[in-house]
Amino acid sequence: MMDEEGFSEWYHRMLDENQVVDIRFPVKGMPVYRGAGVKIIKYMRDYLENLLEEDGHEPTYFPVVIPEDLLAAEAEHIAGFEDEVYWVTHSGITPLERRMALRPTSETCMYPMFALWTRTHTDLPIKIHQSVCVYRYETKHTRPLIRSREIMWNEGHTAFATREEALENIETIKKIYTKLMTELLCLPIEINQRPDWDKFPGAEYTIAFETLMPDGKTLQIGTIHNLGQHFSKVFNIQYEDANGEKKLAWQTSYGPGFGRLLAATISVHGDEKGMRLPPAVAPTQTVIVPIVFKETDRENVMSFIGKVEEILKSQRIRYTIDAGDERPGAKYYKWEQRGVPLRIEVGPKDVEKKHVMLVRRDTGEKTTATLENLDVGKMLSDIQKNMREQAKKKFEERTYTAKDEKNLDKHLGEGIVATGWCMEDQCAKPIESKGTILSINRDKKAKCVICGAEGVEIKVAKTY
Amino acid sequence: MMDEEGFSEWYHRMLDENQVVDIRFPVKGMPVYRGAGVKIIKYMRDYLENLLEEDGHEPTYFPVVIPEDLLAAEAEHIAGFEDEVYWVTHSGITPLERRMALRPTSETCMYPMFALWTRTHTDLPIKIHQSVCVYRYETKHTRPLIRSREIMWNEGHTAFATREEALENIETIKKIYTKLMTELLCLPIEINQRPDWDKFPGAEYTIAFETLMPDGKTLQIGTIHNLGQHFSKVFNIQYEDANGEKKLAWQTSYGPGFGRLLAATISVHGDEKGMRLPPAVAPTQTVIVPIVFKETDRENVMSFIGKVEEILKSQRIRYTIDAGDERPGAKYYKWEQRGVPLRIEVGPKDVEKKHVMLVRRDTGEKTTATLENLDVGKMLSDIQKNMREQAKKKFEERTYTAKDEKNLDKHLGEGIVATGWCMEDQCAKPIESKGTILSINRDKKAKCVICGAEGVEIKVAKTY
Repeated sequence: MMDEEGFSEWYHRMLDENQVVDIRFPVKGMPVYRGAGVKIIKYMRDYLENLLEEDGHEPTYFPVVIPEDLLAAEAEHIAGFEDEVYWVTHSGITPLERRMALRPTSETCMYPMFALWTRTHTDLPIKIHQSVCVYRYETKHTRPLIRSREIMWNEGHTAFATREEALENIETIKKIYTKLMTELLCLPIEINQRPDWDKFPGAEYTIAFETLMPDGKTLQIGTIHNLGQHFSKVFNIQYEDANGEKKLAWQTSYGPGFGRLLAATISVHGDEKGMRLPPAVAPTQTVIVPIVFKETDRENVMSFIGKVEEILKSQRIRYTIDAGDERPGAKYYKWEQRGVPLRIEVGPKDVEKKHVMLVRRDTGEKTTATLENLDVGKMLSDIQKNMREQAKKKFEERTYTAKDEKNLDKHLGEGIVATGWCMEDQCAKPIESKGTILSINRDKKAKCVICGAEGVEIKVAKTY
Repeated sequence: MMDEEGFSEWYHRMLDENQVVDIRFPVKGMPVYRGAGVKIIKYMRDYLENLLEEDGHEPTYFPVVIPEDLLAAEAEHIAGFEDEVYWVTHSGITPLERRMALRPTSETCMYPMFALWTRTHTDLPIKIHQSVCVYRYETKHTRPLIRSREIMWNEGHTAFATREEALENIETIKKIYTKLMTELLCLPIEINQRPDWDKFPGAEYTIAFETLMPDGKTLQIGTIHNLGQHFSKVFNIQYEDANGEKKLAWQTSYGPGFGRLLAATISVHGDEKGMRLPPAVAPTQTVIVPIVFKETDRENVMSFIGKVEEILKSQRIRYTIDAGDERPGAKYYKWEQRGVPLRIEVGPKDVEKKHVMLVRRDTGEKTTATLENLDVGKMLSDIQKNMREQAKKKFEERTYTAKDEKNLDKHLGEGIVATGWCMEDQCAKPIESKGTILSINRDKKAKCVICGAEGVEIKVAKTY
C-alpha cells in the first residue's frame, strides 16, 4: 500500500526510466509507447487474439473514422460520446462533405456492415475482433496508460440469432478475459455488473473487470456489454430464421484496455526496487551478468556463459547478456528496476564449481544450478505462479466490509468495500461523494450504510 | 497477362468472394479488412517485425495525430503532403487550440522525440519501427489495397552518428525487404532509385521496390529514403561526439505497404481458378475434404481423417476439414478460389489403401501418400519454392528493352522497359506521357528513345 502521491511519483519514474512510455510528446494525453511498453502489449495482444480466434472470432480491421450520421444513429450512444469525440473536418484545405469522428469505439461503424453480411440464420453468429486505438477527448486529468486520449485496446463485436447465445458468449468472454488477466498478467480481479447509471451508452447492461492499484483505487481494465437488440434495431441487422421469419440479431461487445492492463501489470507487481514483470510478458526474461574483476578471468567466464546461452536458446528463453563496463551492483540495480524475473550471475568461482548463481526477482532468493540442472523454463513458471499468488493475497487483504459510515470512510482508499444501500437516491448521493458504486447485488441483503434501512449489498471503491 | 479490365474484374471478385476486404464501408478509399486479409497481413507483419528487431530495431508506437506546427517544420515535406492530409479540428463541439493532422507518415512526429533522446554519440544509433495506418486523402481514383486513403504499413526510422552507418542501414533494409517480398511472399521485385522529381518530400533520394501486376503495370510496394541531415537540422537531432563536438545526426526512413503487398500477393500468383496463396502466408495451408457418397462410409473415412489430423497437428500445419453438405466438386472449387495451397482428399477407397490423395494448388498435380510418408511441411515448402520460381519466370519474360519509340509503345503496359534518355526535359515529357520513369542509370549509356542523342539508360513502365 502506497499513498497517492508516493505511488504517482513511483509510477511515472517507472514508465520513464524503464522506457515504457514517454509523456513528452506534444499532444496532451497521447504519450509515445517505447520498446518495453510495446513489447509487453504485444505479448498480451497475441495471447488474447489467439484465445478469441480459438473461440471462432475472425480478426478484422475497420477504418479509424466514422461518418457523423452513423455515429449519431443510436441516440443513447451518441449522447454518451458526443462531447468527447475528435472530429476530422478537412482534407488539405478542403472541408469534407460530412464530418467524420475518430472512432471512440466501433459499434456504429461495424454494425452497418453486419447488416450487409446478415441475410439468413446461417450467416450468424458473427464474432469479430480487432486490436486498434480508440480516441476520446478526456476532459478529466490525464494519466499515462490509465486515462489517455488515444487508447490501445482489443474490441470484440458479435451478432447472434438468439439471446441465449449472446449470454453464452458473455460467459465465454468472461473466461477469456479472466485468463488474460490472471494467467498471463498475474492480476487479481473482480468482475462487477455496473449500476444502470454507469453502463455503456446503448447497452442493456455492462460487466466490468477491475483490479486494485497500490494506492487503494480500483482500475477498470475491461468491460463486456450486453447490447440486446438496441443496435440491431437501429442498424437493421435482420436475419431470416428457419421458418422464413425476419428477426433482429442479439449483440454483445467487449474490450480490455491494453494500456490499462500494462499500467496494472507494472503497478500491482511493483516494489521499492522497481518493476517486477510476470515472466510470460517480460521482454527480457533472464539477464546474464558476467562477474569479471580481473581481465584474466574474462575468457573463462565468457566461454562458460556461452554454454549457458546454448541452454537458454534450447529452452526458448528471452535473455540478454549484460557485458557492459558498469560494476555488477549497478547492473543488478538496473535489471531489477526493469523487472527482469531472473538474473544469472557467472563469476570465476562459479566457473570453477561448474554452476551458475540464480537470483529470483520475485523473492530475492539465491540458488545455484549446474548446467545439467539448469531449467530456466521451470523457474520462470514458478515465478509466474508465485507472483500470481502474492498479488492475490494482497488483493484479498484489501477487501473490506463496512457496516457503518465511519468504517466505509476508513476503508475507502484502501481497497474495495462491501456495504449496504437502501436503493434510494438520497442515500446513493452521499455514498458516491465518497467513492464509486462498482456493483449492486440485489440478491444479498444488507443495511444501508447511510440511513440504516433494509437494503442490498453494494461494492464501493475509489476509482481511477 | 490479362487486360486492364479483365484483371480489375478478377481482382475485385477475389477480394469480395474470398473475404479479403469489403469495399462497401461508407467512406471512399477506406475498405473494411476481413478475416483472410487481416490474417495474411498479420503473417507479413510478424515476419517483418522479427527481422527488424533481430537487426536491433525497437518496436514503438507514436500517436496518430501530428500537431500542425510539427508537420509544417520541414518545408519540402509539408509542401509534399499539405494537400492530402486529413485535419482534426474539433473535440466534441469545441475547436482545438491547434489543428492536428492524421499522420500521413511519421517523420515529423517522431523526430522531435529523437532530439530529446539524443545527447551524446552513445545514444545513437536510434532504430525504431511501428506497424500502423497512415492517412492520405488521395484525389486519384482509389482502388482497394492499392490506392487507399487509410494505408496499413510498417515504418522504420533511424538516426545515426555518421553517413556511412546510414548507408549501411539502407543496405540492410534492402535485404530485409527483399526477404519479406521474395522469401515470404514469393514476389519477384526490382529495386530502383527514383528520379529526383519523384523522391520523398524531404529526402536526399528514394529507393523503391516494385513488382509487376498481371495487367502489365508496376506496383510500388516499398520505399527507403535517405534523409541525409534535412530533418535532423530542422528538429535539432544533435549529438556530442567523442571529442565533445556537437554534430547533426544522419537519418533514414522506410516502409513497405502491407495493403499493396497483399494486393501483389493475390494478383501476381492468381490464376483463372482464383487466388493461389504462398503457403507461408496462407491462413489455411491445407484443406481436408472427406469424400462420402454413402452414409455407411462416413465413420471409416472420418476416423481415418482423425489420424491425418494428428499428423498435421504434429507438423504445425494450419488446416481445416470441410465436412459440409456440398458436393466434393463444389468444395474443390471454393478452396481453390481461396488459394489454399494443398488439398487432401480421403474417400473409402483411400482408407482401404491406407493412403490419402494430395492435390497441389500451384501445379494441379495429384499424388498419394501413406500416413507414414505424409510430410505436408515438405510439400508446402516445395510449393512455396515453385511459386517463387513461376512468378520470377513470368516477371523476367516481361522485362523488355526498347531501342525506338514504336517498341517502347508496344511494351509499355506489358512490363518494365529499359530504354534511353538524353536527360533533357523536352524528351522526358513525351516519355512520361507514355509511362513513368522508374529509374535513371547514369552509369549505363543508351541512345535517347525520343531524339536519338547520346544518353543514359532508364527504366519505364505504366504504374499504379
